[in-house]
Amino acid sequence: STSFDLAQHPHRRYNALNGEWLLVSPHRALRPWQGQQEAPDTASRPAYDAGCYLCPGNVRANGVHNPAYAGTFVFDNDFAALRDDGPAGGFERGGLLRAEAESGVGRVICFSPRHDLTLPEMSPAEIRSVVDVWTDEFRTLGARPDIGYVQIFENKGQMMGCSNPHPHGQIWAQRTVPGEPEKEGRQQLAHWQQHGRTLLTDYLAIELAEKSRLVLENEHWVVLVPFWASWPFETLLLPRRPVPDLTQLTEAEKDDFADALRRLTIRYDNLFQTSFPYSAGLHQRPTDGQPHPEWHLHMHFFPPLLRSATVRKFMVGYELLANAQRDITPEWAAERLRSQPEVHYRHAPA
Amino acid sequence: STSFDLAQHPHRRYNALNGEWLLVSPHRALRPWQGQQEAPDTASRPAYDAGCYLCPGNVRANGVHNPAYAGTFVFDNDFAALRDDGPAGGFERGGLLRAEAESGVGRVICFSPRHDLTLPEMSPAEIRSVVDVWTDEFRTLGARPDIGYVQIFENKGQMMGCSNPHPHGQIWAQRTVPGEPEKEGRQQLAHWQQHGRTLLTDYLAIELAEKSRLVLENEHWVVLVPFWASWPFETLLLPRRPVPDLTQLTEAEKDDFADALRRLTIRYDNLFQTSFPYSAGLHQRPTDGQPHPEWHLHMHFFPPLLRSATVRKFMVGYELLANAQRDITPEWAAERLRSQPEVHYRHAPA
Ligand SMILES: O=P(O)(O)O[C@H]1O[C@H](CO)[C@@H](O)[C@H](O)[C@H]1O
Ligand SMILES: O=P(O)(O)O[C@H]1O[C@H](CO)[C@@H](O)[C@H](O)[C@H]1O
Repeated sequence: STSFDLAQHPHRRYNALNGEWLLVSPHRALRPWQGQQEAPDTASRPAYDAGCYLCPGNVRANGVHNPAYAGTFVFDNDFAALRDDGPAGGFERGGLLRAEAESGVGRVICFSPRHDLTLPEMSPAEIRSVVDVWTDEFRTLGARPDIGYVQIFENKGQMMGCSNPHPHGQIWAQRTVPGEPEKEGRQQLAHWQQHGRTLLTDYLAIELAEKSRLVLENEHWVVLVPFWASWPFETLLLPRRPVPDLTQLTEAEKDDFADALRRLTIRYDNLFQTSFPYSAGLHQRPTDGQPHPEWHLHMHFFPPLLRSATVRKFMVGYELLANAQRDITPEWAAERLRSQPEVHYRHAPA
Repeated sequence: STSFDLAQHPHRRYNALNGEWLLVSPHRALRPWQGQQEAPDTASRPAYDAGCYLCPGNVRANGVHNPAYAGTFVFDNDFAALRDDGPAGGFERGGLLRAEAESGVGRVICFSPRHDLTLPEMSPAEIRSVVDVWTDEFRTLGARPDIGYVQIFENKGQMMGCSNPHPHGQIWAQRTVPGEPEKEGRQQLAHWQQHGRTLLTDYLAIELAEKSRLVLENEHWVVLVPFWASWPFETLLLPRRPVPDLTQLTEAEKDDFADALRRLTIRYDNLFQTSFPYSAGLHQRPTDGQPHPEWHLHMHFFPPLLRSATVRKFMVGYELLANAQRDITPEWAAERLRSQPEVHYRHAPA
């Protein structure tokens, strides 16, 4: 008789970071795919595009001219989902219909003046300057009394709803703490109260011992496929030292964060020899003025590609109605990412 | 000074059914869209397709021949995410890595032998026979001691990961209760214990009084855009009488469920004059042998299209990292659906 094997048998995994479960179906990786074929991003783009509203010097939808910026460039989103000019207030009917005004700001961060670059093709110093902008924005927005949480993220690739290939990310900062960081905060607080160490410190120690889900490391950061990953090649970027937010990282830790970002995104592009689409973002402490020692800053990458540059994972019927599900194991995904070179395929010697 | 207005100002809404919050940005509906254009499904298909593995008489991937079925046809998924032949067992490391074997079955339900039909183009009697198959499958699977929950759903359209246009849905039935029904069950139980009525009975009474989110009604069912809808044209189908599962509906209630399904899906197709993509599914009581009087059976439709047959809503960066967000209000969406005719655009007299 066979015994239970994570690599072979359907199972549920617990996500210790957000408290939810995930269905893993390792045997299903072999099913044929006859559905939608994605358009891989193989476009070669000019360094400057006169029609791009993010390129230096160009005009945005609201008539404003971008400066002739040479590094990063940050501005208020012209179509922000959050605003800070609305009235306070709420709505309630019979205890079951409940709404409350929400306020905040949306910011756009251009990573580079170059229209044709993405993170994996930028230099370590250029990526470090993106980390610095994230840090400054977190500090400034987080210091506002009307901002309780700052969400920094990037949608990359049309498949992930990105509407402009110019390398950029966003910040949505708001009064209240949204659902995902709220769940992660609750799990981290419970662990902290019980053990006096951050949940991710203890988790990282296990992963460093097990090794099977590690992708890459440097002195201050570790990149791994979390045990509970739901997207096929999902990764978690963790500083070894537990700090609640970017402003508490040392210079060396910020250099290593940039290094981890560069090496990971190069591996991603190399995996299917395509500009790898993803949504990625930082989770940090709420900006309510409390120190939140339970919060261990980290970054998530959620990439949709499953088997090739044209076949993605859909989070649809069962996933929307029941719970997340994956077909390849996190261990297998980590192994694939570990085996990628750290020279970008477009720049590799032939 | 203006006062807070749900139709104008950014706000958060509480989802009383699953306990989570949603960000609503009504003012954002006007932002221009320069991203991915979807391929609308305007294909005209043959009634029978020799290359389709779901058509009557054809051979499936595993070499089995489909029967020459004339109504609905149900079989075990050849590539099911769940199986019932694996060993029991679990995995644990340091309290933070936790997995357990999961077992179950996957079933595929062909709605019609006709390759070229979808629900909105099927007759009331044909749709009623789909409701009957769902009911029979729920009864049979739910009676198994190894099945604790039965998820019935449909992914329609390539955009929602459907790999074959032949009209069909799926069932994933498993040992444990997945995340979404677990959350809904918790909320419904708390309401039941406090009020002695189902949460959705009280919710429905509010919506029938408010009227602004109603889409259509018949004697036994109501279709509405829930106050907390996150997908642009998301709807909830509710029986007026609270029953925990399909097997407890009367014949007249099942007829009216089919009627509601037909009229809703016709309105969906008419909205953007396209075969409207969606993921949809039923939420019913867990099949643990308990009566679950708190459970009020219902069906969710989660359709991705936002503005037209080619522009969808992406649930990406902010949505994955923070929480769900929508750009048009549920009230506006309900109004659009209410104003659609109930004759399918492909069959309407010119
Ligand atoms: O089972 P199918 O139709 O091949 O697959 C589809 O539905 C499943 C259940 O929602 C998803 O897990 C898959 O990602 C999707 O492509
Ligand atoms: O703000 P953008 O880039 O126009 O829009 C994109 O990111 C947002 C935040 O994740 C999403 O709400 C949108 O659906 C997506 O298209």
